[in-house]
Amino acid sequence: MQLGLIGLGRMGGNMRDRLRAAGHEVVGFDPRPEVTDVPSLAELAAALEAPRVVWVMVPSGDPTRSTVRSLAEILEPGDLVIDGGNSRYTDDGPNAELLSAKGIGYVDCGVSGGIWGKDNGYGLMAGGAQEHIDLAMPIFDALRPEGPREEGFAHAGPVGAGHFSKMVHNGIEYGLMQAYAEGFELMEAAPLVENVPAVIQAWSRGTVVRSWLLDLLVNALNEDPHLTELEGYVDDSGEGRWTIEEAITHAVPLPVISAALFARFASRQDESPAMKAVAALRNQFGGHAVKKSAGPAGAPGDHAGPSSGSGSTH
Amino acid sequence: MQLGLIGLGRMGGNMRDRLRAAGHEVVGFDPRPEVTDVPSLAELAAALEAPRVVWVMVPSGDPTRSTVRSLAEILEPGDLVIDGGNSRYTDDGPNAELLSAKGIGYVDCGVSGGIWGKDNGYGLMAGGAQEHIDLAMPIFDALRPEGPREEGFAHAGPVGAGHFSKMVHNGIEYGLMQAYAEGFELMEAAPLVENVPAVIQAWSRGTVVRSWLLDLLVNALNEDPHLTELEGYVDDSGEGRWTIEEAITHAVPLPVISAALFARFASRQDESPAMKAVAALRNQFGGHAVKKSAGPAGAPGDHAGPSSGSGSTH
Amino acid sequence: MQLGLIGLGRMGGNMRDRLRAAGHEVVGFDPRPEVTDVPSLAELAAALEAPRVVWVMVPSGDPTRSTVRSLAEILEPGDLVIDGGNSRYTDDGPNAELLSAKGIGYVDCGVSGGIWGKDNGYGLMAGGAQEHIDLAMPIFDALRPEGPREEGFAHAGPVGAGHFSKMVHNGIEYGLMQAYAEGFELMEAAPLVENVPAVIQAWSRGTVVRSWLLDLLVNALNEDPHLTELEGYVDDSGEGRWTIEEAITHAVPLPVISAALFARFASRQDESPAMKAVAALRNQFGGHAVKKSAGPAGAPGDHAGPSSGSGSTH
Amino acid sequence: MQLGLIGLGRMGGNMRDRLRAAGHEVVGFDPRPEVTDVPSLAELAAALEAPRVVWVMVPSGDPTRSTVRSLAEILEPGDLVIDGGNSRYTDDGPNAELLSAKGIGYVDCGVSGGIWGKDNGYGLMAGGAQEHIDLAMPIFDALRPEGPREEGFAHAGPVGAGHFSKMVHNGIEYGLMQAYAEGFELMEAAPLVENVPAVIQAWSRGTVVRSWLLDLLVNALNEDPHLTELEGYVDDSGEGRWTIEEAITHAVPLPVISAALFARFASRQDESPAMKAVAALRNQFGGHAVKKSAGPAGAPGDHAGPSSGSGSTH
Repeated sequence: MQLGLIGLGRMGGNMRDRLRAAGHEVVGFDPRPEVTDVPSLAELAAALEAPRVVWVMVPSGDPTRSTVRSLAEILEPGDLVIDGGNSRYTDDGPNAELLSAKGIGYVDCGVSGGIWGKDNGYGLMAGGAQEHIDLAMPIFDALRPEGPREEGFAHAGPVGAGHFSKMVHNGIEYGLMQAYAEGFELMEAAPLVENVPAVIQAWSRGTVVRSWLLDLLVNALNEDPHLTELEGYVDDSGEGRWTIEEAITHAVPLPVISAALFARFASRQDESPAMKAVAALRNQFGGHAVKKSAGPAGAPGDHAGPSSGSGSTH
Repeated sequence: MQLGLIGLGRMGGNMRDRLRAAGHEVVGFDPRPEVTDVPSLAELAAALEAPRVVWVMVPSGDPTRSTVRSLAEILEPGDLVIDGGNSRYTDDGPNAELLSAKGIGYVDCGVSGGIWGKDNGYGLMAGGAQEHIDLAMPIFDALRPEGPREEGFAHAGPVGAGHFSKMVHNGIEYGLMQAYAEGFELMEAAPLVENVPAVIQAWSRGTVVRSWLLDLLVNALNEDPHLTELEGYVDDSGEGRWTIEEAITHAVPLPVISAALFARFASRQDESPAMKAVAALRNQFGGHAVKKSAGPAGAPGDHAGPSSGSGSTH
Repeated sequence: MQLGLIGLGRMGGNMRDRLRAAGHEVVGFDPRPEVTDVPSLAELAAALEAPRVVWVMVPSGDPTRSTVRSLAEILEPGDLVIDGGNSRYTDDGPNAELLSAKGIGYVDCGVSGGIWGKDNGYGLMAGGAQEHIDLAMPIFDALRPEGPREEGFAHAGPVGAGHFSKMVHNGIEYGLMQAYAEGFELMEAAPLVENVPAVIQAWSRGTVVRSWLLDLLVNALNEDPHLTELEGYVDDSGEGRWTIEEAITHAVPLPVISAALFARFASRQDESPAMKAVAALRNQFGGHAVKKSAGPAGAPGDHAGPSSGSGSTH
Repeated sequence: MQLGLIGLGRMGGNMRDRLRAAGHEVVGFDPRPEVTDVPSLAELAAALEAPRVVWVMVPSGDPTRSTVRSLAEILEPGDLVIDGGNSRYTDDGPNAELLSAKGIGYVDCGVSGGIWGKDNGYGLMAGGAQEHIDLAMPIFDALRPEGPREEGFAHAGPVGAGHFSKMVHNGIEYGLMQAYAEGFELMEAAPLVENVPAVIQAWSRGTVVRSWLLDLLVNALNEDPHLTELEGYVDDSGEGRWTIEEAITHAVPLPVISAALFARFASRQDESPAMKAVAALRNQFGGHAVKKSAGPAGAPGDHAGPSSGSGSTH
């Protein structure tokens, strides 16, 4: 079938390739002339037969919202817009309402799979009315991995349920990654395991912890066994934050996912103001040595063990 | 090759089957007459040609330690004992020393895979001298999953490294399980996702969070979509505790794995003494209502939202 | 000076008493005829000379917002409204704007001290313009504890800064309470400390952990040494949630305050859906026993120790 | 009364002063000639009349254990040794047994108060037999703060209970400090509160969070309002680690105290290996940019907000 696809970046470009390989006719739009198929959204609409299905794959937030607003002007009753980006689910209701006023349908679709999805297929979680899901099903089927549909696609619920599911998926992802990372650090810290990458690779089959993320960790350690070339600096794209905020709304305890998010925040700090305050307090009550920012860092020695020789009692 | 196998429970029994299916001659011993091949450890030793390889697969702690002591009396120089149970790695040094005094070798081997290992193979992490690893390699090869050896087996390091690796593996496992569980709870708590099991099943292929544990969660939700038949009560087998203790020794922060362990502890409490103390404090300073243990539980209403209508300011 | 005081509940009633004891003329309004001084807001306004200062002490959220809207109709240019409730700081901007359009000033004031403030005085954190702070300073001075002004009152910043400070104060409070509570639980769980209340009381003077909250814990344990009469059920009033949300906005890691909030969420669950999921997973991979919701709970025995005798290896 | 006091460092020296000021006769020993009263332990024993009471105030671990061994040789039946250092409570049983074989009594006493104890008095938690507690009570009374005995001294239980109580005290202390520190960081990160030190000082009286630690934080912020001169580097003396280990033994969830401990561990890392692993994973699945250790750090920009403009969807 025909699909309009807006946004031909890392994800959108790959999706265009995968859809075309599956025999679909994709008309792509991107502001970069070197990758776009049409010069404007209007010409994208003109190139598609009604009822049009247009997939939006641009950064979440303002870029997606303004694209939806443009489509509300350009598309016609009976057409369908799918937001496949990482939008917060709270954007979906307003988007759907805006389009619905013009008779245009709306589906939100969480998409997982990263740069590997082009070949492996993408896991999809969609929210919207059944008729809109049905209209786009050939596209979903081409994007999702081969195998039973239900193992790579879900109609999660009404508008918003797709992005909500993707948000939770990413929250879980934070926790999974942090769990592996903590295990890696502990094995690196203890002298007993001589070949940490080999142990992690041996978890690839048969073990309880085998997973695709584990396979990726094996890949990374093959390239750099002690990850010496990387900084321990980790960005976050917002989905983890929204997950915690949603948990707070529903009074759901998420100790693991929040710990994973906070570890990312901390990874981006050169200095922790909180730990300065703790250092200041220890200095105040116990005369414990503090490290002054100015001057040489000194030789703190082996800090794995508690500083039991300090003779301090407070 | 020949193998003596001590302990024919859920794990040992399956391993015997898998090894025999691979063409190995397994002489199994278990105190239960209905499953054992030989009536005693002495007859197990007698049934094997030197150099004997004897795999111990009994509960960790005293049962394993006493089995090793018995084997030190029964086996001969040149023989090899492998502890495949979930022993703490700190048991391995003493075990190896005891056996070494008799000229008997020792390997510790972490085994992962649960009841599925019989068919899928087990992930293996071994610690010990290279010559001992080599001696038992045909057994390792039969137990591990098919495919490249390094994806299901690692020689992790010297004696103790196998169990250390398995300990970390299980610590990671705690974190992974808790991450999925938190995501499940959040989706169940929010009304938007109408079909939580379908969403989780759609993560089976293509997504970043796909894993064997996810597949098992899909299985569990197929049987009981809201897990209504289960209690939220989770035991722990010790490996998670050891992981945290090891992290403390090496000053490694493990926020996720510790949160997962503490969630298990809390799951087993009918009442939290800590939260009683918090309730008592709130009552003291603010006159906040507390729930008395005696008497009817009352109707606390919808506690997802904060009790903003209480008018309390403290 | 004269003060209009709206809301004569636990906090407002005490504040009226304290202010009158300090010689101020307080005209209180409350919907309950038995406590109010005037029958309506209009008569409250009529009873005060311009420029009027009116302190709002009603539940946060809609009650406070609607009170402010009413005051915008009733008061006159040059008057001042102070919101002393536990409003979220994001309400302050809109409130101030609404009043400012009528020429009425606005100050937000966080108030801490609970039911003890009547006698001890209240800690105050105010946000707003200097001229408005100055206008109300006699009231602040009467409400705050005796001693240096700066030890019980701060002009924290512009409108919103008072409630923001109070929000952080309460977030800290969550962490402090949880810290004491965890220590209490650990001492209760370990057999070595025979008289836990005595130990906690001995921390009242001289120690690093002495505090007012500790004094309150001592009081509570005097009444009920093992807190047997309380349920471990803890509500939350919203400030802890807002603190975490604010931390997420600013990428500040708050592991302790979030853990304290999540412990409250968990305290209100009869069953944890997350832990059901973990139990289901363990059952799936290892055949670990699960507790079924239906039927008798069985005799799980001493669960403090890990279930090492299970012989399970997964 | 007479007291032998071994160890005249920061704590021991102050205690000698406080005890002498209270009229007690203190014979102090320290290896440093410029502070010691006697040249050897033997002369310390000789200077005291039987039954002698000797207070050990040296670093925990080997120094304390070897001092106790020496005293077992030097003292006589009926004498009493008090370990007032920060020993792990598991040292107390062996120490008591060693001395008991010689007819010498043993008391363990947790001491809190830091450098302020000289003037304020020390909070004391003692473990041991009642007769030994009674023998030393004049010393305890002189060391503890003025006021009711039970507010500064507890006989916590048998040998070990004193140090156990002190361990828990310090675990709580970790949590309290981290709670204040997190609040400080959040206020510093948000622009609304213009004068963070003033707000914190305003919590000194009347508020729920008032405490001695808060007073110390006020002191520290008076000297350095943004703590710019300190590094966010925090040592730990072992008590927090033991607290978590004890919690694990008793299956007590300690999310707050463990988070506080892990924050200290993390504060001492220049790079987090765990976060390197997370960065590596994100790079693997999503092509997310990673920061390479080598080369210039680049311009990460404002990382408080999630990197929503990345267009990444995975």
